[in-house]
Amino acid sequence: MADAIPGPAARRRGRRRAGEDTREPLLAAARAEFAARGFEGATVRRIAERAGVDAAMVNHWFGGKEQLFVAALDFPVDISTILDRVLPGDRDELGARIVRTFLTVWDTTGGAPLGTLIRSVASHESAARLMREFVATALAQRIVRPVAPDRHEMRAALCGTQIIGLGMIRYVLRLEPIASATHDEVVTAVAPTLQRYLTGPLD
Amino acid sequence: MADAIPGPAARRRGRRRAGEDTREPLLAAARAEFAARGFEGATVRRIAERAGVDAAMVNHWFGGKEQLFVAALDFPVDISTILDRVLPGDRDELGARIVRTFLTVWDTTGGAPLGTLIRSVASHESAARLMREFVATALAQRIVRPVAPDRHEMRAALCGTQIIGLGMIRYVLRLEPIASATHDEVVTAVAPTLQRYLTGPLD
Repeated sequence: MADAIPGPAARRRGRRRAGEDTREPLLAAARAEFAARGFEGATVRRIAERAGVDAAMVNHWFGGKEQLFVAALDFPVDISTILDRVLPGDRDELGARIVRTFLTVWDTTGGAPLGTLIRSVASHESAARLMREFVATALAQRIVRPVAPDRHEMRAALCGTQIIGLGMIRYVLRLEPIASATHDEVVTAVAPTLQRYLTGPLD
Repeated sequence: MADAIPGPAARRRGRRRAGEDTREPLLAAARAEFAARGFEGATVRRIAERAGVDAAMVNHWFGGKEQLFVAALDFPVDISTILDRVLPGDRDELGARIVRTFLTVWDTTGGAPLGTLIRSVASHESAARLMREFVATALAQRIVRPVAPDRHEMRAALCGTQIIGLGMIRYVLRLEPIASATHDEVVTAVAPTLQRYLTGPLD
């Protein structure tokens, strides 16, 4: 990992390798602050204060508040990578890009972190709240609203039902034939669902 | 619902059949033990001890640990009740009947047992296996196959993704606007998805 900027402990003792002991405290503080205040309410400054770390370390380690939020969720990729893969392209293919990106991201991990995430969400209201915030910000505001401003929160939540359920069946339950289906097979079957939730009629 | 067993009032009046007052304590103890230790960790002996009941009563009432687990999952209705609600009627309305039945069943519980179920499935391979078997038998064989013999396992698994995801979002994450949506709103939005998975083209 990068080790450019010394953390407070390093400054105190003057011999620790740079910054490494500031990342985990930031993550722990971020989980607590996002859970307590939500994504909008939490501030980088306050998270850094709680961690006893300079606020510049958030950018150093994570690149910004959104990336810190996703890191706090233990996603295998950061949100800007997801958005870069999902957003560019034809509006009518957005559903397909979401499904394909989801499969690409989670296939690389074998799905274990998704099991952990779902367990957390089902066990802890604070994790559930983080996930709600993720859907409300990343999915509803960044992905759905630009293509479908009307009822974008309902559309995002509907997309959420299909995506999280696909994750449960493929990676957690490992139910066949979906567990072993190719990306093309899953995209062909599921993308029309997302596309209708995104841009189709809901009533 | 599934309630052929006389309640406490009947017992007080002396109409109790042998052993009936051991079933509910076993279920309560099983829920506590499965929740605390997961499916693998919980033992029939310990469950029986917690219930203050002879361990042989587990086989008597449930047939074994797996069946006890399914009973402890606390499906608010039994499978034959679900099938009675879902199967009769127009083939083209099957998706709508599934969504409406799912909402009716889980709304009565406030969704807490669904959270327990999802946590178990995400934590324990044996619980996941039980759930796979449930989908493979109840959903694929009993509901999907009669209306769509071709690719009925894929169709059932796809239905599973949408149903379990709807449950996660509405009852576990409690994400708005789906958490508070009326049954009609959810059915209108989601039933076409299930109907396509059941009887539509998948490629």
